[in-house]
Amino acid sequence: MTAAPDSGRPFTVEPWVVREPALHLEAMGQTESVFALSNGHIGMRGNLEEGEPHAIPGTYLNSLYERRPLPYAEGGYGYPESGQTIINVTNGKLIRLLVDDEPFDLRYGQLRRHERVLDMQAGTLTREVEWMSPAGRGIRVRSERMVSLTQRAIAAICYEVEVLDEPALLVVQSELVANEQLPPADDGDPRVEAALAEPLVAELHRSDEAGATLVHQTRQSGLRVAAAMDHEVHGPADTKVTSEATEDIARTTVITRLKPGEKLRIVKYLSYGWSSRRSLPAVHDQVRAALAAARFTGFDGLAKEQRAYLDDFWSTADVEIEGDAELQQAIRLAIFHVLQAGARAERRPIGAKGLTGNGYDGHTFWDTETFALPVLSYLAPDAAADALRWRQSILPLAYERAEQLGLAGAAFPWRTIRGQECSGYWPAGTAAFHINADIADAVRRHVAATGDTDFEREVGLELLVATARLWRSLGHHDSSGEFRIDGVTGPDEYTAIVDNNVYTNLMAQLNLRYAAEVAARHPRSAARLGVNAEEMASWRDAATAMRIPYDTNLGVHPQSEGFTDHQVWDFENTPPEKYPLLMNVPYYDLYRKQVVKQADLVLAMQLRPDAFTPEQMARNFAYYEAITVRDSSLSAATQAVVAAWTGHLDLAYDYLAEAALVDLNDLAGNTDHGMHIASMAGTWNAVVSGFGGMRSDRDGISFAPRLPPALGRISFGLNWQGRQLRVTLSQEEAEYRLVSGPPMRLRHHDEPLALADEPVTRPIPSAPVVEPVEQPYGRAPRQRHPG
Amino acid sequence: MTAAPDSGRPFTVEPWVVREPALHLEAMGQTESVFALSNGHIGMRGNLEEGEPHAIPGTYLNSLYERRPLPYAEGGYGYPESGQTIINVTNGKLIRLLVDDEPFDLRYGQLRRHERVLDMQAGTLTREVEWMSPAGRGIRVRSERMVSLTQRAIAAICYEVEVLDEPALLVVQSELVANEQLPPADDGDPRVEAALAEPLVAELHRSDEAGATLVHQTRQSGLRVAAAMDHEVHGPADTKVTSEATEDIARTTVITRLKPGEKLRIVKYLSYGWSSRRSLPAVHDQVRAALAAARFTGFDGLAKEQRAYLDDFWSTADVEIEGDAELQQAIRLAIFHVLQAGARAERRPIGAKGLTGNGYDGHTFWDTETFALPVLSYLAPDAAADALRWRQSILPLAYERAEQLGLAGAAFPWRTIRGQECSGYWPAGTAAFHINADIADAVRRHVAATGDTDFEREVGLELLVATARLWRSLGHHDSSGEFRIDGVTGPDEYTAIVDNNVYTNLMAQLNLRYAAEVAARHPRSAARLGVNAEEMASWRDAATAMRIPYDTNLGVHPQSEGFTDHQVWDFENTPPEKYPLLMNVPYYDLYRKQVVKQADLVLAMQLRPDAFTPEQMARNFAYYEAITVRDSSLSAATQAVVAAWTGHLDLAYDYLAEAALVDLNDLAGNTDHGMHIASMAGTWNAVVSGFGGMRSDRDGISFAPRLPPALGRISFGLNWQGRQLRVTLSQEEAEYRLVSGPPMRLRHHDEPLALADEPVTRPIPSAPVVEPVEQPYGRAPRQRHPG
Repeated sequence: MTAAPDSGRPFTVEPWVVREPALHLEAMGQTESVFALSNGHIGMRGNLEEGEPHAIPGTYLNSLYERRPLPYAEGGYGYPESGQTIINVTNGKLIRLLVDDEPFDLRYGQLRRHERVLDMQAGTLTREVEWMSPAGRGIRVRSERMVSLTQRAIAAICYEVEVLDEPALLVVQSELVANEQLPPADDGDPRVEAALAEPLVAELHRSDEAGATLVHQTRQSGLRVAAAMDHEVHGPADTKVTSEATEDIARTTVITRLKPGEKLRIVKYLSYGWSSRRSLPAVHDQVRAALAAARFTGFDGLAKEQRAYLDDFWSTADVEIEGDAELQQAIRLAIFHVLQAGARAERRPIGAKGLTGNGYDGHTFWDTETFALPVLSYLAPDAAADALRWRQSILPLAYERAEQLGLAGAAFPWRTIRGQECSGYWPAGTAAFHINADIADAVRRHVAATGDTDFEREVGLELLVATARLWRSLGHHDSSGEFRIDGVTGPDEYTAIVDNNVYTNLMAQLNLRYAAEVAARHPRSAARLGVNAEEMASWRDAATAMRIPYDTNLGVHPQSEGFTDHQVWDFENTPPEKYPLLMNVPYYDLYRKQVVKQADLVLAMQLRPDAFTPEQMARNFAYYEAITVRDSSLSAATQAVVAAWTGHLDLAYDYLAEAALVDLNDLAGNTDHGMHIASMAGTWNAVVSGFGGMRSDRDGISFAPRLPPALGRISFGLNWQGRQLRVTLSQEEAEYRLVSGPPMRLRHHDEPLALADEPVTRPIPSAPVVEPVEQPYGRAPRQRHPG
Repeated sequence: MTAAPDSGRPFTVEPWVVREPALHLEAMGQTESVFALSNGHIGMRGNLEEGEPHAIPGTYLNSLYERRPLPYAEGGYGYPESGQTIINVTNGKLIRLLVDDEPFDLRYGQLRRHERVLDMQAGTLTREVEWMSPAGRGIRVRSERMVSLTQRAIAAICYEVEVLDEPALLVVQSELVANEQLPPADDGDPRVEAALAEPLVAELHRSDEAGATLVHQTRQSGLRVAAAMDHEVHGPADTKVTSEATEDIARTTVITRLKPGEKLRIVKYLSYGWSSRRSLPAVHDQVRAALAAARFTGFDGLAKEQRAYLDDFWSTADVEIEGDAELQQAIRLAIFHVLQAGARAERRPIGAKGLTGNGYDGHTFWDTETFALPVLSYLAPDAAADALRWRQSILPLAYERAEQLGLAGAAFPWRTIRGQECSGYWPAGTAAFHINADIADAVRRHVAATGDTDFEREVGLELLVATARLWRSLGHHDSSGEFRIDGVTGPDEYTAIVDNNVYTNLMAQLNLRYAAEVAARHPRSAARLGVNAEEMASWRDAATAMRIPYDTNLGVHPQSEGFTDHQVWDFENTPPEKYPLLMNVPYYDLYRKQVVKQADLVLAMQLRPDAFTPEQMARNFAYYEAITVRDSSLSAATQAVVAAWTGHLDLAYDYLAEAALVDLNDLAGNTDHGMHIASMAGTWNAVVSGFGGMRSDRDGISFAPRLPPALGRISFGLNWQGRQLRVTLSQEEAEYRLVSGPPMRLRHHDEPLALADEPVTRPIPSAPVVEPVEQPYGRAPRQRHPG
């Protein structure tokens, strides 16, 4: 996960919408991702209705994947033999238009106006086009698209055409197309995985008057997928509607002659479903039923439901920023995309790109738990709970993998769709065992945020026991009695296969401790999992004895054993074009030197602040700032949090902006392959945890807010154990308001407060004066704060 | 490189020959390798003349390779994109026989007698068969095959047929066959690489009366290869000889009717040549010319030359063992195969399997320098010099690779044929930088053994400067002033990417020191390479400051930084079928625990005895014995040497036998893919360096001999700085004899001796009493010494 320099942006700055006021063909890949609509089950990239031009056409269904072989120049025991790739399923977005024999194609004729707007309150993508065909026929096309957050299987498009000056004969072809031809994959970039050609094998095609259904199976993975469409057509009286279907294409054709002032309006309802088990008739009927319900609701009804869902969401989730309009917009977009990724995933994984692109093969990694779930646990707790239920559902595979690796408990896959390990490079895959503690920590945080003890007992306990067992068998006590975890890889992918990675050991420690605590709280459920007092004691003992290396000479924590003895990367002689380093430098050289791709020890400080003194935190932060190059989009948000905590408020602001703008400004140069969901989520974390100073556990929530000088006001909300809370910060004071729910206690800069009907306001202590910290040559974040 | 349990053997025990008295179809793969003939330029597996049955048909030409893609599930910068594989070239061994319409095939009819004999004094493989066809025709076939050590491009086969009881019509088809169909490669075993299908593209085919020529080019690598044959036929007067050629097959057909008592004798002369640059006519003419010379010499002349070459070789090289006939035979076979691998390689690499099989893709690794060249420097110094000249010839590629890796100097490939890095797994490839120091040490040893200062200046210096520069840039001084080499892999492939591997650091230290020393000795040549006094000083400084970690608690050297803090492998719960571990356990688990595949720290003690006190050597040996599983055939010989040095003479004897018998007894279960040349060479090292206690450097040679109780007498010879020396050891005394050359000095158990015309005899001090050492559960070598 890498970052590249800034680029221009095709969008205006507005608080609640992302508007592209004119078509940016060169940014098509980026706009397709930013404009992607998803409910976590269906994802549709912001492709044009007419299909072309495009960068990457994409329609995705959560967990609908195809298998692909994983080849090795030299194999090894336990290497996964096949991987899983998200596939572009039957495309229902397609609506082609013929104007008097001329296909409506923006690359020809004259484009007079082209605007697209993503409305984050409406949950829609609208488009307005005025186009003159090469033969001189002017038309206006207006479309509005949504992927329903309330009807999980449904998407809908309202498509309107008018002729401008002269009458014209219009032919609209609204389609379902399977096995769309995709652009060739970019080779040489390990981040961009190969798309698969023609993965869908036709099983059924059927059309009726104004719609059709296509059912396919994936070639290797054998998953059955159905797509259906239906249309409402409003046009002049003699408008003709017919439909046809072949194996890979279904088409509803609308023909009409339109005069100026007349309008052709087509509402296209789309329904998707897939199953690994259900029969062809069952899957077929399922999509037809969903379609019937959607048509019954109507487009306006769906739009109303969508807005209501989002109104409810934003009432808690909205973050207001005063003093930086671009950041205001970016933060809302970030929250919106995190919601889209998780809202209706419902016991399916939340991928690193959500359902906005095919980057990373559509896989889910540790960052879902570490970055996205914190947001969802506070803003959409059901989605967070379901994501963890998905982890529970793949425990049988994780137990198998642990056994194959010679370990107890469960070893969750580093990257996967369905649950099997799909990583083809074990030093940065299998060896990154921290994912197991990250999942455990997401459980802990979710239970703390929601107070949901049923979840803790029914879902959390099993995950905690399985991961605690893993750690207990992965580590060992050395002769001095310390518990070591050797030969693993931490979050920083520029260092691998090391002993006692501080992040891993601290997170494993928490995992072990918390597993013992939860098992003690649910003794009968724990006993059913075979947990006894001896095992719980062995977890506590290992946690207590956990080795946390410390470099007494430098007064900092080495990222892992011996790290600070390594040579420091020669940053001065590394020109900008060498970044991201993984593209231009061999791993062997990165691994052996002090150069950090992404927050690792700093992330340990974010997630385990209790394990560091304020002095250690300050020294560690300064030390790692100087060697962290942020070649990963998972870094800036974490650096923002710890920068804020250590008093580097301007720097925190710069990092926050970098995290927030990664996709709006295509900072990593790869937004075309999908949104950086973890960076989006990190944006929220940076505001709430960083500037808000929010920390929480089962026993309470506390804030230690401090704003960067450039911002006048920040307001954010969250759910907390059945309450809805809003925090509004200015430079001088913080206001805590209980929007709903029973009275509660919290802490403001260590001062205990009771909160009931009335908001409570407290002054914010002024920030300490701190020594500036330095980044590697050329790698400082773009300065956003006034000099 | 792995070892598996003992298996039966098809051979008798005889001092100078390896005889298979009856056909062992089940051991065909093994016998093909053991019976392989090679001169280092041409290699022919011991396939039957009639081609079938076979395990792996194989005819190889040194450095004639084909490119093949190296695939990666997840790629990375600097990963080699294509590999190189030795290919089975045009097979000239084929002589098919038809007996009255029945093809001579051992799988049909009745086999009355079948004997094959490899004669290590004659340098020939002979075969005698008596066979009754299914139709009842009895024949006797006698063949004698050689790959000429004196005429590098030539092989020859004398093929004789007699009929036993009744006359028969015989048709002999003597062939050249390109693109032979090969058995499918064993998948799932990373040691066995895929063979390539139809790699040869026909360029020319031509036949004359009694012979033919085929010229091909390799499909991807574009190398031109020519094979030609000619025949002398002696038979009854009406014997008819015709020849024909098509693109991939050339055939000389001999038809005769034989009566009992008559004999058909065919001498087949074969000539091979290849070039990456020479034109078709040039390569064609080259093989025809070689063929003419061979025919001029005649089969008997070639046989006489062969024997004279070997008489001369054995006069120095022979090792005599009294008290273990099996070992006697094995040691001669070992020396013979090391000679065959290197004799006429002539500035081409010596592969891990020589030219006896397709194992490891025919690649050359570090073990050529570390195991094979020590033998050749003492027994066939020209071959050793040429192997190092080959390294010099690929320096341009090694400079390029270093640059790609961001390093100064040269980075030699971990595995290659032509010189490009072909390793597809960098943690056990690129990271194993020690190969560069191993090459430097081979230079040092060769110069010490030969006293060849021209070689030192012309070849050695450039190699030393290039490798010293590599080390200087790979390592760095830490804040305490120590010179560290981080993130590398040592010889033990069960540990990777570690800091300060003791073996690597000690060998790099020697490399740096010796480079400075040789540069000082040849200042003008060094200056031409850009070496100045400052650079030489920086090498000496780095060598002096080299960090050698030591575990003061345990009183042993950790194999690398922190190694002794790792968990010890659970040997008690590792059943025998789990070995070799790399086939049954993931790397991540091997890397993080104390389990040693092959001598690493112990090899450091063998090659740098000056760096260890006798007490350290004893403690280290005992410590590493307990965790070394010998899953590599590169281990036993080294353990034999250090066992002998530390007084474990019985154990040394057990290890020596394991190294010596690896192929004769197929101990690793993979002799079918070729001979273990390094283990063969290690056998000689174990005798001479282990029991002989031989150490040498530029300034002199010393011995500290001690025999294991089971052996009555060992005699070995070597060349030493222009002299031929023979050492004969009994339990009580050592005799040193100068066979030729000027008087010299040597040391016997630290006592200085002068040696001239008369042999000198000295008593051998009795061995110290030592504590026994232990191996991991189930991994002790087979006990050979009397209980």
